[in-house]
Amino acid sequence: MSKRIAGPEIERLIQLLAKVPGLGPRSARRAALHLIKKKEQLLAPLAAAMGEAVEKVRICSRCGNVDTIDPCTLCSDPRRDPATIIVVEDVADLWALERAGAMNVRYHVLGGTLSPLDGVGPDDLNIKGLVARLAEGEVREVILAVNATVEGQTTAHYLTDQLSAFDIKVTRLAHGVPVGGELDYLDEGTLAAALKSRTAF
Amino acid sequence: MSKRIAGPEIERLIQLLAKVPGLGPRSARRAALHLIKKKEQLLAPLAAAMGEAVEKVRICSRCGNVDTIDPCTLCSDPRRDPATIIVVEDVADLWALERAGAMNVRYHVLGGTLSPLDGVGPDDLNIKGLVARLAEGEVREVILAVNATVEGQTTAHYLTDQLSAFDIKVTRLAHGVPVGGELDYLDEGTLAAALKSRTAF
Repeated sequence: MSKRIAGPEIERLIQLLAKVPGLGPRSARRAALHLIKKKEQLLAPLAAAMGEAVEKVRICSRCGNVDTIDPCTLCSDPRRDPATIIVVEDVADLWALERAGAMNVRYHVLGGTLSPLDGVGPDDLNIKGLVARLAEGEVREVILAVNATVEGQTTAHYLTDQLSAFDIKVTRLAHGVPVGGELDYLDEGTLAAALKSRTAF
Repeated sequence: MSKRIAGPEIERLIQLLAKVPGLGPRSARRAALHLIKKKEQLLAPLAAAMGEAVEKVRICSRCGNVDTIDPCTLCSDPRRDPATIIVVEDVADLWALERAGAMNVRYHVLGGTLSPLDGVGPDDLNIKGLVARLAEGEVREVILAVNATVEGQTTAHYLTDQLSAFDIKVTRLAHGVPVGGELDYLDEGTLAAALKSRTAF
C-alpha cells in the first residue's frame, strides 16, 4: 500500500501472507481481512498451529520426509514393507504417492534433482543416505519415482549407476495414459510410450 | 489424507490453511510444505505476525475499520478532511479506496448491506454510529461508496432517507463502476475516476 492505512502489524501480516504459494498481493489482503474477521475461529488457531509447527517439525534423518517425530511416522511404522523403497524428488511427491495409497512401503526423499546448470550436483542431494540404507541389506527393490522431466531422468540414470553395486531390483514408474485421461489431449511422447508398453487386455 | 502420513500437527496446519480464502485442500498442502521448508524465513515470522494480529487487532469504535489502535489510523490522522465521510460496506472496500488514494478523508464502514431476505435490517448495520458522527455537526458531505449491486443501492436509498434530516450533501460514486461489480476487485484508476466525478444523489 502506498499510504499507511492500518497499523504496521496488519501490513506485515499481508506482506508475509503474499509469500505463501497460491496467494498474491491482492489475495493476501483478502486473506488477511478474512483472518482478522474470523479472529477467534481461524486466525488464533492458525497462529497456534504455525507456532507449533515451527517448534516441532523436523526432517526425518532417515528418509528426508517432514514430520514432528524423527524417524518419521512412515519410517517408524512396523506394518510397512522395509524391503521396498520409493525414491522421490520432494516431500510433495511422497505425499501424492501416499494419497494414491497403492503401496505400503518406505520412501526416500532426494530433495531435488541433478541440475548441473543450477549447480546441483550429487552431493547436494540426499544420495549418501540412500546408499547407506541399501548397505543395511534389507532392501530388495528401489522404485525411482522421479518426475518425467529431463532433470528427473538424468537423476534416475545417475542413481541406477550408483545402485548397480547392490544386488537390488531398480524400477521406475510406468509411462502411459493417465487414468480418466483423453487421448486427444495427450502429448505424442506419452502416447508413444503408452503404445510401446501396451498390456494384454 | 486417508492415512496418517505425518504428525497431527502438520495435518492440523493443512486443515486450517485450507480455510484461508484463496487456498483449497490441495493448495493448502503445497502451502504447508513450502512454509515448513522455509521455517525460519517464513513460517516463524508468519506465526509471530498472526499471533500479534490476534492480540492487537481491533475494530475502530468510530468508523468500523480494523486496525491495531482505536480510534484507527485513519480516524486519528489530523491531516484528513473531517468534513467528508466515505461510507463503505466493508473494510475491504475502504482498503480498495485508500489504494486508489484519490481523497484524503474519513470513512465509515457499515459492515454489510440491507438484505431483508437474509434478515439483515438497519439495526444490523453500523448506521447509528454514522448518524451520531453526523450529529456532531462537522461533516458537510457523505459519499455513499456502496457496491453497485441491488443490495448496495437499496442501502444507499435507505441511508439517503436517514440523512435527509441533516444539512449535508449526499453523493454517490460516478458511473464508471461496472454494474454488478465489487469495489474490492476494481483497479485503482477506475476507483479514482469514479471518486472524482461523483454526482449528487
